[in-house]
Amino acid sequence: MGNTFGHLFRATTWGESHGDAVGVVVDGCPPKMPLQVEDIQKELDRRRPGQSEISTQRKEGDQAEILSGVFEGKTLGTPIMIGVWNRDARSRDYEHMRTTYRPSHADYSYDAKYGIRNWMGGGRASARETIGRVAAGAIARKFLASEFGLEIVGYVKQVWQLTAEVDPDTVTMEDVESNIARCPDQDMAVRMIERIKEARKDGDSLGGVVECVARNVPPGLGDPVFDKLEADLAKAVLSMPACKGFEVGSGFGGVTMTGSQHNDPFYSEGGRIRTRTNNSGGIQGGISNGENIIIRAAFKPTATIMKPQETVDVDGNPTILEGRGRHDPCVLPRAVPIVESMMALVLADHALRQRGQTGNF
Amino acid sequence: MGNTFGHLFRATTWGESHGDAVGVVVDGCPPKMPLQVEDIQKELDRRRPGQSEISTQRKEGDQAEILSGVFEGKTLGTPIMIGVWNRDARSRDYEHMRTTYRPSHADYSYDAKYGIRNWMGGGRASARETIGRVAAGAIARKFLASEFGLEIVGYVKQVWQLTAEVDPDTVTMEDVESNIARCPDQDMAVRMIERIKEARKDGDSLGGVVECVARNVPPGLGDPVFDKLEADLAKAVLSMPACKGFEVGSGFGGVTMTGSQHNDPFYSEGGRIRTRTNNSGGIQGGISNGENIIIRAAFKPTATIMKPQETVDVDGNPTILEGRGRHDPCVLPRAVPIVESMMALVLADHALRQRGQTGNF
Amino acid sequence: MGNTFGHLFRATTWGESHGDAVGVVVDGCPPKMPLQVEDIQKELDRRRPGQSEISTQRKEGDQAEILSGVFEGKTLGTPIMIGVWNRDARSRDYEHMRTTYRPSHADYSYDAKYGIRNWMGGGRASARETIGRVAAGAIARKFLASEFGLEIVGYVKQVWQLTAEVDPDTVTMEDVESNIARCPDQDMAVRMIERIKEARKDGDSLGGVVECVARNVPPGLGDPVFDKLEADLAKAVLSMPACKGFEVGSGFGGVTMTGSQHNDPFYSEGGRIRTRTNNSGGIQGGISNGENIIIRAAFKPTATIMKPQETVDVDGNPTILEGRGRHDPCVLPRAVPIVESMMALVLADHALRQRGQTGNF
Amino acid sequence: MGNTFGHLFRATTWGESHGDAVGVVVDGCPPKMPLQVEDIQKELDRRRPGQSEISTQRKEGDQAEILSGVFEGKTLGTPIMIGVWNRDARSRDYEHMRTTYRPSHADYSYDAKYGIRNWMGGGRASARETIGRVAAGAIARKFLASEFGLEIVGYVKQVWQLTAEVDPDTVTMEDVESNIARCPDQDMAVRMIERIKEARKDGDSLGGVVECVARNVPPGLGDPVFDKLEADLAKAVLSMPACKGFEVGSGFGGVTMTGSQHNDPFYSEGGRIRTRTNNSGGIQGGISNGENIIIRAAFKPTATIMKPQETVDVDGNPTILEGRGRHDPCVLPRAVPIVESMMALVLADHALRQRGQTGNF
Repeated sequence: MGNTFGHLFRATTWGESHGDAVGVVVDGCPPKMPLQVEDIQKELDRRRPGQSEISTQRKEGDQAEILSGVFEGKTLGTPIMIGVWNRDARSRDYEHMRTTYRPSHADYSYDAKYGIRNWMGGGRASARETIGRVAAGAIARKFLASEFGLEIVGYVKQVWQLTAEVDPDTVTMEDVESNIARCPDQDMAVRMIERIKEARKDGDSLGGVVECVARNVPPGLGDPVFDKLEADLAKAVLSMPACKGFEVGSGFGGVTMTGSQHNDPFYSEGGRIRTRTNNSGGIQGGISNGENIIIRAAFKPTATIMKPQETVDVDGNPTILEGRGRHDPCVLPRAVPIVESMMALVLADHALRQRGQTGNF
Repeated sequence: MGNTFGHLFRATTWGESHGDAVGVVVDGCPPKMPLQVEDIQKELDRRRPGQSEISTQRKEGDQAEILSGVFEGKTLGTPIMIGVWNRDARSRDYEHMRTTYRPSHADYSYDAKYGIRNWMGGGRASARETIGRVAAGAIARKFLASEFGLEIVGYVKQVWQLTAEVDPDTVTMEDVESNIARCPDQDMAVRMIERIKEARKDGDSLGGVVECVARNVPPGLGDPVFDKLEADLAKAVLSMPACKGFEVGSGFGGVTMTGSQHNDPFYSEGGRIRTRTNNSGGIQGGISNGENIIIRAAFKPTATIMKPQETVDVDGNPTILEGRGRHDPCVLPRAVPIVESMMALVLADHALRQRGQTGNF
Repeated sequence: MGNTFGHLFRATTWGESHGDAVGVVVDGCPPKMPLQVEDIQKELDRRRPGQSEISTQRKEGDQAEILSGVFEGKTLGTPIMIGVWNRDARSRDYEHMRTTYRPSHADYSYDAKYGIRNWMGGGRASARETIGRVAAGAIARKFLASEFGLEIVGYVKQVWQLTAEVDPDTVTMEDVESNIARCPDQDMAVRMIERIKEARKDGDSLGGVVECVARNVPPGLGDPVFDKLEADLAKAVLSMPACKGFEVGSGFGGVTMTGSQHNDPFYSEGGRIRTRTNNSGGIQGGISNGENIIIRAAFKPTATIMKPQETVDVDGNPTILEGRGRHDPCVLPRAVPIVESMMALVLADHALRQRGQTGNF
Repeated sequence: MGNTFGHLFRATTWGESHGDAVGVVVDGCPPKMPLQVEDIQKELDRRRPGQSEISTQRKEGDQAEILSGVFEGKTLGTPIMIGVWNRDARSRDYEHMRTTYRPSHADYSYDAKYGIRNWMGGGRASARETIGRVAAGAIARKFLASEFGLEIVGYVKQVWQLTAEVDPDTVTMEDVESNIARCPDQDMAVRMIERIKEARKDGDSLGGVVECVARNVPPGLGDPVFDKLEADLAKAVLSMPACKGFEVGSGFGGVTMTGSQHNDPFYSEGGRIRTRTNNSGGIQGGISNGENIIIRAAFKPTATIMKPQETVDVDGNPTILEGRGRHDPCVLPRAVPIVESMMALVLADHALRQRGQTGNF
């Protein structure tokens, strides 16, 4: 039952990395919204492996097909089914995974839970599953843009120990897409790319932080006390593969301030109540306050590396896992559209909930 | 609809800080489990204001009553209703809140969402709401302890810029409760207490980090892909008042490592597959792997301070909010049982889900 | 987890018949709606035992208290908690139930499921649980009335083999309340009352049918394909104690017609599309079409009778259950407000869902 | 959000009748269960149009493909995606539906709700949507059979005014499948077939009743108070196209009995507690008691007929709808596997819930 996200705007993803296909069913998208397959494809292309010299060299076409829910270019209000066929599933690459548990992958824990796994790749734990998320997120983003002019921009904030300076209030999608690191701090982007290439050469991998901002968010989104906006954003972010941390607004850094430093003073601007600082990250008491929502997601270094590693086989016998094939030294640039998509799914869901409960908008 | 947490083990909290009562309905607790009101009261006493010289001096008795779901000392499998009457609601303290938005409180965002709020206190945004969480968490903890021998221990890891050294694998509840800071690093506890007293004198407030460990967790808990164990833990943590960040295992610190440093090698110990390090924090691919689960929650400094602050009234006119009454300079010690409770609710829910779907346990 | 009904407008009932109290938490009621305890009490009084000479003579005061969610006479948008204390729980009446399974009661099946039950009365299977439903339904009705002018009128359509003639399009609440049978066909009401008195004298019990109509229903309510309006109404109705059947529109009778007899021709009236007949019962394809919604609920004769019955004790030994105490020969008049309440809960939930998904209303 | 059914065993159907495909995602099926596409195909073949001379002559191949969730012939515990391509979608048949509302179809109410509809056929309101239900139901049945030896047998109990005599305790699938009416009362089957042929000749249609029995049901299934087993069965049944009524056990007929006639006496048989009669229909207090569960679903006569009908166009202007193309004079035989499937989905879901909450089985 864990494969559905959202209440009114719902995404149900399906598919193993080495099955026939992966995809998503989006239920609850409002009717009469223009939607083309291109809206989805352009986001899938940002997520796709092999798109640059610093991502994995495995080529995946990832062509989306819309199989239901759209008629004459518009949403019907019925479930939108989007499928992507797996074209490049070469099972011979994965034979060794049948019997060996890869460190910090999900092989062992899936076996512990289900007593079975599709050992030809990561199965549901593979990043291929996120295709469905990005497809659903593309729909959510279109809804939020057309309904509120809301825009979501994510970018690589940190790779390994290299941290970028970015202003979340002004950064543009063009800034982000201007380099293959998806880091709008151009100098730092150069250093990140260099460091990632070095990691590839070492057969090692790097983690990092994606920061993501939502602008033009209407006040009132979020449903206390358990479905606070930051709570659902945290769940969304931590549900992504390899994610180990979440922050909103001041995050962990805010704990070193005092209350008088951290509190965001209110003021009035053109009839709208605003805050002078935004340590709250656009959310107070679980509800958006109209300021930009700023979140950060921490990704551990990718588990797949090319170095030999100590591990055990499925019977518990010690063995060495040798690196083979291709690896992705840093997934951060490709993680950007996934974080954006998850943020969009949360905001779209809460927009519908808020409209339902209060009649606002 | 946002006031229910969990799927099979469900807590629905209710009550405003200055209404008649607060409480919780726990639905889905397995039947025939021994349960006394004392099991709940002892955790409420750890959460209660006024329990030490460094917490707020507002006294709240917080006596729990079990109104349903328990018969002759055992759970019936039916909803367990627990109520706590509000005895100390003095509305005169709050008259100024009728017209003024307190900075970094939820006054403005509640008005933006609902168009109405109980201005006599924080209403649902008040920390009093967490009474229901702690009561529900006490039941979840008892279930987990009796079913799996699972134990949950939380403690103050950081206050302001003061960070403790604690070994999550060995720390005991006794260590935690041995000082009023709930910090098992006794030297650091002394410094924390001193710093909190200083903040009180300044009329200012401090934030911090609570770390929480679950031990004896059976492998297999967690429901990919959206209800991964870390995703539900993140939601649980970020649903608490004043929480701005979540980490599991290596968290944000892990991003500065390389994959070869971060991966947790598998080995076999007494027929059980284990990991030599625990950067994964006991969860891999969204599923518990049997190692200790370690999470951290970042709390901003409390919004209520005694210093004058710039703000606006409900009509948007600028005004100064003067500090008055009592304030809680640091909620971290009292946040410990709340974090533990939220962790317990997540684990109990996933234990039931796992038992349901796979028949394990 | 089965104690919550609804998605956006949610009722969670709690309480055993012989515990301390019963009640309900209503989550998702829109904010700023005027609400007084009298709105709830007047419906509870219609449900209350002992209100007439043909219902049980057991007196229950059933005074409602609103413990949260309402402030200065208006809803806050936060959970509304309503409790009713159990005043008349006399455990001595029930000692024989400790060891004997009463035929067609839930004693055995509760034991089979939970391995434990509150044998001092029906526990959760008791009709007392419906107090929470009626309290929640009163709130839902008030919302529907103020938002759409929607009105819900239920009445006793059949008792035993006595069937009334009632026009659902014109019947009024006053017609219903004009006699203690709650049957607006006054002649038939007299015969029903007579028959019920006879059953009481016999120590026997009678079943019947409640019909319920909703008028001024906006078109568009219902969420295909699984949450069709009639599907959620059916669930609502069958979740009531002693209910064995549900019909909408033509129901079981419609199966004896042909399509050309049964189809409801469309026509236009004052710019509104209507149907000349209403075999559909106001719902087509799972969605309200603006015509009156008409449902029927079949209730079996009450299981508690005063005649000796064959049964077994908890160990499976044959025994005779003697009638003792008081019994309710026919619950139909008291079931009317419960059916109305369940219908109101379904319609309120779907109104919020529809508003959320499509922005209509 | 209305396209998902179930909590732990969940089916999400998708697809319009004249889109590219229809299908279902089944989430929560226990892992390691053998599953072949043939298990699904054989049930789809029973639902398929054109299978006999009394159903519609429109041929639909309806070949199922399993796209995820199964590996080496066994379920993975991950979402099982099943798709069926629409091969016979001829839009020229449906041009008149663009502008005309067909009586007692969902054309108008869909427009009222969504403001848009796929007018090339019934869209989501088409019976083609039930392909996903039958596919999901086939999986649920296999789980129930392998786990409990539980079997589900449905059959046509009534067509128009022709009612069959069938013993639900002994009827077999072979009895049902022995004639094209799917009515195990062979004499009545002949008359039903004759009557259906007559209706076809008349261009008219017939309704009827499907009865369905589940045998070898473990006691303890069902989750009071709202998710009572009969409540979820009622919802399941009423969510089917054209369904207008539901009964369990004695149903509407039971209301004409007295309590002393209706109560099911308990007795003990081989250490198992049983009831001598089964007016309860295998469910007491919302929980299965181990007796056979017997339900009935009333289907109105199919809305599509070949006779001219009064109606309006989308602008409200009066018009006559002429019959054209092919029609299905009686869907009852094809409805049998759908009712069975919905019953299976409910029972599988509650089996997992019961196992989760109580650890039974």
